[in-house]
Amino acid sequence: MTSSPSLLDTLRQVVGAAHVLTEGDLAAYEQDWRRRERGRALAVVRPGSTAEVAAVVRACAAQGVAIVPQGGNTGLSVGSVPDASGRQVVLSLRRMDAVRAIDGANLTMTVEAGCILQNLQAAAEGAGHLFPLSLAAEGSCTIGGNLGTNAGGTAVVRYGNTRELCLGLEVVTPQGEVWDGLSGLRKDNTGYDLRDLFIGSEGTLGVITAATMKLYPRPAARLTAWAAVPSMQAAVDLLGLAHQHLGAGLTGFEVMGQFALGLVDKHYPQLRVPLWREAPYCVLLENSDHESEAHARALFERLLEAALEAGCVSDAVVAESLAQAKALWHIRESIPLAQAEEGLNIKHDISIPIARIPAFVEETDALLAREIAGVRLVNFGHLGDGNLHYNVQAPEGGDAKAFLRDEEERINTLVFDSVARHHGSISAEHGVGSLKAAKLPRYKSKVALELMRAIKGALDPQGIMNPGRVLV
Amino acid sequence: MTSSPSLLDTLRQVVGAAHVLTEGDLAAYEQDWRRRERGRALAVVRPGSTAEVAAVVRACAAQGVAIVPQGGNTGLSVGSVPDASGRQVVLSLRRMDAVRAIDGANLTMTVEAGCILQNLQAAAEGAGHLFPLSLAAEGSCTIGGNLGTNAGGTAVVRYGNTRELCLGLEVVTPQGEVWDGLSGLRKDNTGYDLRDLFIGSEGTLGVITAATMKLYPRPAARLTAWAAVPSMQAAVDLLGLAHQHLGAGLTGFEVMGQFALGLVDKHYPQLRVPLWREAPYCVLLENSDHESEAHARALFERLLEAALEAGCVSDAVVAESLAQAKALWHIRESIPLAQAEEGLNIKHDISIPIARIPAFVEETDALLAREIAGVRLVNFGHLGDGNLHYNVQAPEGGDAKAFLRDEEERINTLVFDSVARHHGSISAEHGVGSLKAAKLPRYKSKVALELMRAIKGALDPQGIMNPGRVLV
Repeated sequence: MTSSPSLLDTLRQVVGAAHVLTEGDLAAYEQDWRRRERGRALAVVRPGSTAEVAAVVRACAAQGVAIVPQGGNTGLSVGSVPDASGRQVVLSLRRMDAVRAIDGANLTMTVEAGCILQNLQAAAEGAGHLFPLSLAAEGSCTIGGNLGTNAGGTAVVRYGNTRELCLGLEVVTPQGEVWDGLSGLRKDNTGYDLRDLFIGSEGTLGVITAATMKLYPRPAARLTAWAAVPSMQAAVDLLGLAHQHLGAGLTGFEVMGQFALGLVDKHYPQLRVPLWREAPYCVLLENSDHESEAHARALFERLLEAALEAGCVSDAVVAESLAQAKALWHIRESIPLAQAEEGLNIKHDISIPIARIPAFVEETDALLAREIAGVRLVNFGHLGDGNLHYNVQAPEGGDAKAFLRDEEERINTLVFDSVARHHGSISAEHGVGSLKAAKLPRYKSKVALELMRAIKGALDPQGIMNPGRVLV
Repeated sequence: MTSSPSLLDTLRQVVGAAHVLTEGDLAAYEQDWRRRERGRALAVVRPGSTAEVAAVVRACAAQGVAIVPQGGNTGLSVGSVPDASGRQVVLSLRRMDAVRAIDGANLTMTVEAGCILQNLQAAAEGAGHLFPLSLAAEGSCTIGGNLGTNAGGTAVVRYGNTRELCLGLEVVTPQGEVWDGLSGLRKDNTGYDLRDLFIGSEGTLGVITAATMKLYPRPAARLTAWAAVPSMQAAVDLLGLAHQHLGAGLTGFEVMGQFALGLVDKHYPQLRVPLWREAPYCVLLENSDHESEAHARALFERLLEAALEAGCVSDAVVAESLAQAKALWHIRESIPLAQAEEGLNIKHDISIPIARIPAFVEETDALLAREIAGVRLVNFGHLGDGNLHYNVQAPEGGDAKAFLRDEEERINTLVFDSVARHHGSISAEHGVGSLKAAKLPRYKSKVALELMRAIKGALDPQGIMNPGRVLV
């Protein structure tokens, strides 16, 4: 490691010595969430304001030192940890965690990048509104990270991805200038859409320091149902019926394969997974209603009757209480944990046009069974958005570590090539990071990559913003 | 005019001589919709395919000849006509009007840029779905133009602007390469958001040739109400109640000032404008319901009862039939026509955070009354999105042409400065074009303009795509 004393001195002047970490256990900043990479930072810098972020970026830019922006460091694609060189500065936004304003009449909230998602949900609720972004890491991820990766989650079918929930941004450019694009406007056609360019750019074009996010009226009732469906095609048909019957009330539509639910049953039998033995897939549906619980229940009953009659549901339960609803969601959220209990596995985060999902699953299941002996598929995800976590568990009883070492690359190629044949995406909601950056040239058009490189070169000519991510 | 025979020959080879127009009456292509500018084109080229568009762009790029992409040429900001030099090529997308695919299960439709918006609404309806984009020019504007300008309209409060309705694009770059970004995916986090960069860029970064657009389930019922409200603040309060009572059913929320409705009453007395004499503003509300008309009516009644009780509505009518609903919308849509009957006027298309609109209107009304003798304000618009068409009619009986010549610039500055004080936008849904390009430096941040220029320079280094628009 080449230390750079004058840079560290400058950084200490900017943010205070207590907020420039160079010693002690920095694992929380250097180790990625899935424990795939452990890097080493020149320093972890924790600015407390937008002006400090700008000064940090200017100091790094002056010496050509790379910056890795970091929020909760819960990303799943290795996008927010430093490389092993010891020459990159981790810029942690965690201290910038103020809710700057909540505007009820405008249904907006202006928040700093380091706010924990769960705290924003609570702040919105405290003001009588709903902030609908919801995902597994909400207790530790930050809104800045959600924006940087355009996070998805479980309510996208109704409210969209993080992108669709954002009206304006404040960004520090790679030159250390502050773009104040905070805006509570629903309509603003005065030039290029810089907001959406920064959203999902994974810290490679600048540092998001604050955002104005949309709020929604809180629904009067939320109801959850669990349905056994005879096939993936039946699940897709059920989705169509749910759109018809629930309209915009349809807030969540998750599919879970039998093997995935079996793992939950095996490792967490106390969760009492319903209906999983009797069907190849189960579906979790959520209906938000602005009228009343009775109304929500009547709509759900009509939907499920129609679905039973159409043969796309074989059995179903509707949660009778909030506790039951939470228990059903808890089962869904326990799938990744049950996977971890079962052992090492390979995660995929793919999306496919919804109509093609049954064919994709049938073909890819068969392909993997043929090519990879003993493979076990843990298939679940946000079917309402066409997003599957089509994961692969190592064969039962074998050496999972050796399996991953020997087969992961081949399995990824088989799955991603199949995704490409079905016009899908190899990263639906987790982003590219460094994990998938090298794969983009195979799965993304040459023209798109050229456009992306031209933009990166124009905004960050020094290449100091999160290098090695998205574009390699 | 310097003709460029070899370029014209090449263009004739590419698209056929019949589709390279250089003679006869080209006014439909050279004159802007509002008759503010009449340019002169080197040629109007009408390619019939994406490959032809690409070849046209390559031919122009090779000679450094500027290209003005054009759809229905109904834009309101002078963004799609050539300048007076006679050296720009108008690239009309009108022949590319195929609906390439409708995917009911995926709720998407892939369409070419030259499709007329109304035809797309009909195509979606024919397939049992809803394509919700709706605006005054829908009978002649094209989806390519809607995308290029990120058009808004009357259903934004529920479905968003054109941007929010688009999942993927096909674009010809300024180098004549084709980016196939058509996608039916709701989630795709594999790199920078090129789609949203091209949307709203007004043809300055490339030519949109096709798009995959979202479809929605058709509502079971649509109901329209017309309410008299005692003030703009009451209209904002009514909006809050409507969000609470109708949830996502709230599909339209238009406000109309008394003077604006008086003009409709004066010039089109047969339209029988309801309630306008008794209140300073009226509001038009639309409720889409996925259940039934009876359900929609019950919700509307509850909303209006609550609003009467809260004092934010003084009187209201609910349309009893589709014909009555259409008649109410027709009144709203007749405001700009009545303005034209009344004489020359100045149009504004502004947005303000909704909570600030009452203060903005009060202040700006008073400011203009003080500064501009005899000024008459025609205030109406999409209050649900914070978007007002805050228009100015010349004083009664005076020389309107002289008034515009002498006062337009000063009135624009007074209004736009007031918009800026209230954190609004000087172009909510009409775009910048050449009409407002020179105004951006005063009303947009320097950093934003620098970022925009960097992007423009990176993607169109020759500066041949619609020069003089957006950035000057």
